[in-house]
Amino acid sequence: MPSVSCLELQQQFKDQITSSLGSFTGDVDNVSSLENIRANSIVYLTQEKGMDKVLHSSALLVIAHEKCKSLVPTASHLSWIFCKNPELLMANIKKTYFLATPYRAPHMSLRAPSAIIHESALVAESAVIGPGAFIGEKVYVGQNSFVGANSIIEENAKIGDNTTIHPLVYIGHSCEIGDNCEILPHTCIGSEGYGYAHDERWNHYRIPHSGKVILKNDVHVGANCSIDRGSIEDTVIGQGTKIDNQCHLAHNSIIGKNGLITAQFGMAGSSTIGDNFVSGGKASVTGHITITNNVQISGMSGVTKSITEPGQYGGFPLQKLQDYLKTKAALAKLPELREQLRNLLKKN
Amino acid sequence: MPSVSCLELQQQFKDQITSSLGSFTGDVDNVSSLENIRANSIVYLTQEKGMDKVLHSSALLVIAHEKCKSLVPTASHLSWIFCKNPELLMANIKKTYFLATPYRAPHMSLRAPSAIIHESALVAESAVIGPGAFIGEKVYVGQNSFVGANSIIEENAKIGDNTTIHPLVYIGHSCEIGDNCEILPHTCIGSEGYGYAHDERWNHYRIPHSGKVILKNDVHVGANCSIDRGSIEDTVIGQGTKIDNQCHLAHNSIIGKNGLITAQFGMAGSSTIGDNFVSGGKASVTGHITITNNVQISGMSGVTKSITEPGQYGGFPLQKLQDYLKTKAALAKLPELREQLRNLLKKN
Amino acid sequence: MPSVSCLELQQQFKDQITSSLGSFTGDVDNVSSLENIRANSIVYLTQEKGMDKVLHSSALLVIAHEKCKSLVPTASHLSWIFCKNPELLMANIKKTYFLATPYRAPHMSLRAPSAIIHESALVAESAVIGPGAFIGEKVYVGQNSFVGANSIIEENAKIGDNTTIHPLVYIGHSCEIGDNCEILPHTCIGSEGYGYAHDERWNHYRIPHSGKVILKNDVHVGANCSIDRGSIEDTVIGQGTKIDNQCHLAHNSIIGKNGLITAQFGMAGSSTIGDNFVSGGKASVTGHITITNNVQISGMSGVTKSITEPGQYGGFPLQKLQDYLKTKAALAKLPELREQLRNLLKKN
Repeated sequence: MPSVSCLELQQQFKDQITSSLGSFTGDVDNVSSLENIRANSIVYLTQEKGMDKVLHSSALLVIAHEKCKSLVPTASHLSWIFCKNPELLMANIKKTYFLATPYRAPHMSLRAPSAIIHESALVAESAVIGPGAFIGEKVYVGQNSFVGANSIIEENAKIGDNTTIHPLVYIGHSCEIGDNCEILPHTCIGSEGYGYAHDERWNHYRIPHSGKVILKNDVHVGANCSIDRGSIEDTVIGQGTKIDNQCHLAHNSIIGKNGLITAQFGMAGSSTIGDNFVSGGKASVTGHITITNNVQISGMSGVTKSITEPGQYGGFPLQKLQDYLKTKAALAKLPELREQLRNLLKKN
Repeated sequence: MPSVSCLELQQQFKDQITSSLGSFTGDVDNVSSLENIRANSIVYLTQEKGMDKVLHSSALLVIAHEKCKSLVPTASHLSWIFCKNPELLMANIKKTYFLATPYRAPHMSLRAPSAIIHESALVAESAVIGPGAFIGEKVYVGQNSFVGANSIIEENAKIGDNTTIHPLVYIGHSCEIGDNCEILPHTCIGSEGYGYAHDERWNHYRIPHSGKVILKNDVHVGANCSIDRGSIEDTVIGQGTKIDNQCHLAHNSIIGKNGLITAQFGMAGSSTIGDNFVSGGKASVTGHITITNNVQISGMSGVTKSITEPGQYGGFPLQKLQDYLKTKAALAKLPELREQLRNLLKKN
Repeated sequence: MPSVSCLELQQQFKDQITSSLGSFTGDVDNVSSLENIRANSIVYLTQEKGMDKVLHSSALLVIAHEKCKSLVPTASHLSWIFCKNPELLMANIKKTYFLATPYRAPHMSLRAPSAIIHESALVAESAVIGPGAFIGEKVYVGQNSFVGANSIIEENAKIGDNTTIHPLVYIGHSCEIGDNCEILPHTCIGSEGYGYAHDERWNHYRIPHSGKVILKNDVHVGANCSIDRGSIEDTVIGQGTKIDNQCHLAHNSIIGKNGLITAQFGMAGSSTIGDNFVSGGKASVTGHITITNNVQISGMSGVTKSITEPGQYGGFPLQKLQDYLKTKAALAKLPELREQLRNLLKKN
């Protein structure tokens, strides 16, 4: 693991630091979790809970929320950085000094000899193309972007700057991936949508899909996801939206900005979701509906009608969260209710 | 994009056209959706709704259901084709003239130099094998079929004619894929089924699976699907069945003809489903049951017992659709019911 | 298919055989299921049911539970092996004589010419590396292990002995896979976990994940699974646990020994599951909870609170299995209950 001096860290991130405490001597060589604080590490603390453990540890440096400051004895052997957002500061520190992911490894050659790059493709000089990757006709790959080993970028696709396509990813023809995006392994962007015409004998005929998938800037897509291209218009994921593993977004799905969509989400075709959408695991959204901005739905819920009011929802059928929680609680009592009603009916 | 004259389209598909209207001058160079009708495009209209928008558009050609004909003014500046099945006609037009998918691109070399093709494999001269694809011992690939980049076809597998295996697909040894099939990226056909023998200490031992997966003709499988090979007998998907993304079909699943199975479907082992099965998103079918022909189940439902009567079903527990809809409606009222019952009990 | 003499089978597995019957002449050349007993095959029988069919078949050899012995006529034309665990004995026979999977094919070259193996990688001489596979810097691959075509093993990862990585698998940097493991196609081990820091304007920033994924010995992972690396500490799957297709295990998931986790399971971050866990299809476990040893949960259930008592559970909300089954039964009666209550209210 790399190492960095406490002083350098203090200097580097001074804009995010509200105050600090301690000697700032020594070099940090790893990042610890609260559960297992290792020697010479940085550890971070978002709340008072855990303070005792930190105080008795052999960490070097603590990144703590400023509300924790009053709990720190002046004689602490540790060095302390206080800030408003320790989680974000830690993310920045890890990204700058402790990024273990090899796909940015500076020693990687820019063009793996076994990559197949079409002569008409426009690949920025600073972009890395991994072994066995396929870059089709007229593909564009921007500055500092990375295409992992054995990934496929089909013809006319565009990859912006500073974007990481992990290994074994498929990007279909003509799709557009923005800047600062990240796509994890085994994800399929731009597969043919599930659209069929039917004849009178119930045979099904694929409707070829000519729409694209567009991922705006700062979009992340987890592993083993499927995002289908639009039938005629495009499937579009808004800036800053982060999608977890094993999500399915059907043709012509539209999702707004800064959404947080957790794993195993499913979205049928031609629905539109607004900005700041948050969904719990295994939630589903049916086709041809609209969900307004600032909606949150709980895990395993199913949305089958448009949502016009911002707020928290859950369940299947979907209810406002407070109502759904009552329904869920009552559900476990259903056999008892049934018994009580049966007894009442006998009496009446 | 390619272009085609209105007259050629009228001529080419005359068998499906019941009548037409307009001058049929000019060349169409794209396909529009109703939401965004572009100049010089074809647009299609399955119902009267949308007619106004079409009439005021700068499209060139309209493919409309014949029931829309009476709404078209004789002085329309557009050219009109009327037919019984505009969706199917549009699918045919797109397939013939506007297929943007590059895997059929005429300029693709038939054998990518980096493909690994075993010397004993029998690959039709007209078949295309993409870069990095692996074609194992004694594999057969039929006329005009396509194996995408970095896909794996293991030994003794058979791929029929006119079948498209997209990039990054896995076809396990000895599996059989019919004619006119399509398999989307990251799909796994012929993985080992989840079958274990257990000893008295609750250790689990894989039972090697010697059955195949057989996809009959005209089967489509979406992206990121998993279809396990049979334990001893085969897993079989019937002719014309279309499977959406992220579906899981366990060992010895049998599915009939012309099914429509939408995304995130799960089917445990050794169950049999009849013809014309339709399932909504995230539905599940347990193991060792039988579902008769012509059954439809709604999204997120779970089938745990055999279904012997054709019809529509939903829910978990599964009910006839009309009953399930009542259950679903009542569920949201459950806290209210609980309250009412509580009040009644106080009185009694 | 290979063939083997009945006598050799009897000799080879004598430790598992409690008694036998018949002439043991002839060679077996295939394994049959009870549904379709082929000539010259072995068939196995775990219970009395099916005996008639076996007795009238042209199989050569029957592997039967010893409780079936009394039903076999002394004049049977078949040869019989009786044992306590026919399923396990069959698994051993198939593995030894009838393993059709080509990834162990003895004729495979040990190093495919198109594999990319970093010069610093340590690959055992007996290990097989398939075409197009990528073996990164300082990777270790143990004795008799197999890395399938186009799979990616990133830098510093360790693969133990006798482990099979099927084609098109991704193993992220620094992950550790034990001995006798098996990972099916399109599975992603060590993707970045879904962890973000947020600023005051609701922008999300990836927290780089420095933890590993560790699969202990004898772990199997199905096709199209996603197992995320830990944020700081590791994601760990215990010895002997078998995971079915399309399962998602988020960062810092901990699972004990000998679990059986069936398809489409989802597990949010930082939860811990004990030994011998069994889950039905599409079950879910929320984040930051603990499930004790010896817990079984039924299909489609959702666990949102820690489970401290061993036992069987089901539903969402989760209940003890016996209670859940009552709730499930009552649910289908809910419209009727609502009607009865309505009538009662009218009277009162």
